[in-house]
Amino acid sequence: MAWTPAFREGRDWLKGRLTDAGLRVVEDAAANVWGWWDVGLGPALVLGSHIDSVPDGGTYDGPLGALEAIRALRESGTVPPFPLAVVAWADEEGARFGTGFFGSAAFVGEPVVARYIALAGDGARDTLTAAGVALDRLDTVAAERAHVGAYLELHIEQGPRLEAAGVPLGIVSGIFGLHREEWTLTGAPRHAGTTPYAARRDAGIGAARAMLAARDVARQLAPADGEAVATVGTLALAPNAANIVPGRATFLVDMRALDADILARMSAQLAARIAVICTEEGLTATSQVVLAAPPTPMHPAMRDAIGTAAARLGVEAMSLPSGAGHDAGIVAPLVPAGMLFVPSRDGISHAPDEYTAPEHRALGANALLETVCVLMEWGLPG
Amino acid sequence: MAWTPAFREGRDWLKGRLTDAGLRVVEDAAANVWGWWDVGLGPALVLGSHIDSVPDGGTYDGPLGALEAIRALRESGTVPPFPLAVVAWADEEGARFGTGFFGSAAFVGEPVVARYIALAGDGARDTLTAAGVALDRLDTVAAERAHVGAYLELHIEQGPRLEAAGVPLGIVSGIFGLHREEWTLTGAPRHAGTTPYAARRDAGIGAARAMLAARDVARQLAPADGEAVATVGTLALAPNAANIVPGRATFLVDMRALDADILARMSAQLAARIAVICTEEGLTATSQVVLAAPPTPMHPAMRDAIGTAAARLGVEAMSLPSGAGHDAGIVAPLVPAGMLFVPSRDGISHAPDEYTAPEHRALGANALLETVCVLMEWGLPG
Repeated sequence: MAWTPAFREGRDWLKGRLTDAGLRVVEDAAANVWGWWDVGLGPALVLGSHIDSVPDGGTYDGPLGALEAIRALRESGTVPPFPLAVVAWADEEGARFGTGFFGSAAFVGEPVVARYIALAGDGARDTLTAAGVALDRLDTVAAERAHVGAYLELHIEQGPRLEAAGVPLGIVSGIFGLHREEWTLTGAPRHAGTTPYAARRDAGIGAARAMLAARDVARQLAPADGEAVATVGTLALAPNAANIVPGRATFLVDMRALDADILARMSAQLAARIAVICTEEGLTATSQVVLAAPPTPMHPAMRDAIGTAAARLGVEAMSLPSGAGHDAGIVAPLVPAGMLFVPSRDGISHAPDEYTAPEHRALGANALLETVCVLMEWGLPG
Repeated sequence: MAWTPAFREGRDWLKGRLTDAGLRVVEDAAANVWGWWDVGLGPALVLGSHIDSVPDGGTYDGPLGALEAIRALRESGTVPPFPLAVVAWADEEGARFGTGFFGSAAFVGEPVVARYIALAGDGARDTLTAAGVALDRLDTVAAERAHVGAYLELHIEQGPRLEAAGVPLGIVSGIFGLHREEWTLTGAPRHAGTTPYAARRDAGIGAARAMLAARDVARQLAPADGEAVATVGTLALAPNAANIVPGRATFLVDMRALDADILARMSAQLAARIAVICTEEGLTATSQVVLAAPPTPMHPAMRDAIGTAAARLGVEAMSLPSGAGHDAGIVAPLVPAGMLFVPSRDGISHAPDEYTAPEHRALGANALLETVCVLMEWGLPG
């Protein structure tokens, strides 16, 4: 998990491998780790992903192929026409504070620290600093954009579509918009044995109804199952004692869709449903947006380059959207970005049984390398 | 809260007050604190309650009047015909482990440590030992019953009935049966963005439906609102991350009723409803009973003594059941027990705004003292 001692160890381990590969290692002020191959002219092509994970997560959600593609190029004696780099973005997952994409958000100049503090309080500042973030120099991370011309990310699909289609490679068309809200429902803590239902204002009951409402709203708005989803993954009751009616319930609603209009309607309809629930249950509600990323198309030239690479390798590929958020979606509005997917067994991710077969991992790394080769011929977009 | 350093401080403070009152102080192997007035012949009349509280609880739920009644008797030069004692039962609330009545259960010879370990794991053993429980001598606590002839407890009502009736004193007819179950629903942790609803086994959704089912079942079975209640006060989702569909949900269902048959039907109907929910949501469920106390009538002679005392004082009193569990209900099957209630403002308890007016507290203490006087005339029951 990001911002833990293990995250420090992981970054140090990666720096060792980047150094071994002959790259110039930089950890920037946002705790992103870069390995630069200073070669050629102009802005760089950056290959990257993230090295942090989630509680009880799997082994495959994160880095794949980027370092190996650059090592293969160097070993082959290739001299690229532009600089190449590997990047590991900090805290993609957001598992520590419920809000993520720290490193890539800093790279695009978002006021990411304010977002973290709004959700986690001022303590987030100490946690970030202790973990190696230089809060007073975050602007230097965004300044690095001048040296980056394009971004490529290879990742496991984390969904069932490639496996279901029997296709080993995905060309990501775009990334689901993500809208995450923290809701707090407030009622009154009362003795569980002596308080008739008419006198209860049970925030737990309100939260239960809101969880079901979130699913209802997403199902009704989805063009097809899975194309709009709302999930309540965290819930805390207070005072959280067996013999006390909950006086407060706090939960995060994670909403995702490929269509910005559907995403906006999902949020609005859920708020309307929660307002009705609060009236009926005698509760009050507050909410704040803790993470918002609009649906993001990948750059057409980058998609073409991946498709061309697949064709050269004789690998079947299909276009598909990403239901998961990725750093590629954060940088895409400012840097031409492309993304490759390889299949996830049973579509499982963020779980210990997450798995991608070795042949699919190798195929993905080869496709990433070949895409770099295509871009070396074509030049970077823009 | 029980088993905290504050619980140790509270017991030590109480021992000082008992010593000041000239009583013989004993902390037994279950961490119950006793103050004995060794006088007269035969088994004792014990006045008691508990000194532990709940998270964010109030000031009034617990001891009231017992020590003061004995001090008043001693100061008046009365020589009682039987011994008197004050007792503070350990961990009535069960806020630490979700299961309580530790001290009074040990007193009636229940295998209480096994119950705690079944719920909280072997770690409970260390917590109890560190807090002063002598696990290898718990049988000595039950042996003390030979010296106890009757039990009286004065307590705040923790409900709205006395206040609504405008009556300042309650004579408790019986104590609600309590049946508390821990449920664990297990599904599969999956990525919140990439997993279509058809592929989800969302334990959080299952828990939300179970919470609503518990309320439905209790409402349908209650003869009148509040006479049968089911409450989910604690819930934990795992892995509890915003972007992961919950793979596991654990919650306690606290069920209470004055009628044993209604209590049994409540538990059975909830289990049937949860079975249907699990089938529909692709979940599995396990449950265990973590606390079970049958409905318990108070002893008729003790109720008569309280009624006689109220009449002598010219205080209006009414008979009513207790929706909350009390140590009096634990000891009542083996020791003649009686219980007095004084009003709770707005029926609020287990909350910071819990309140009982000074005049009602004084009235309760006087009624307790007068009940002791009535029993000194009548002799103890049995």
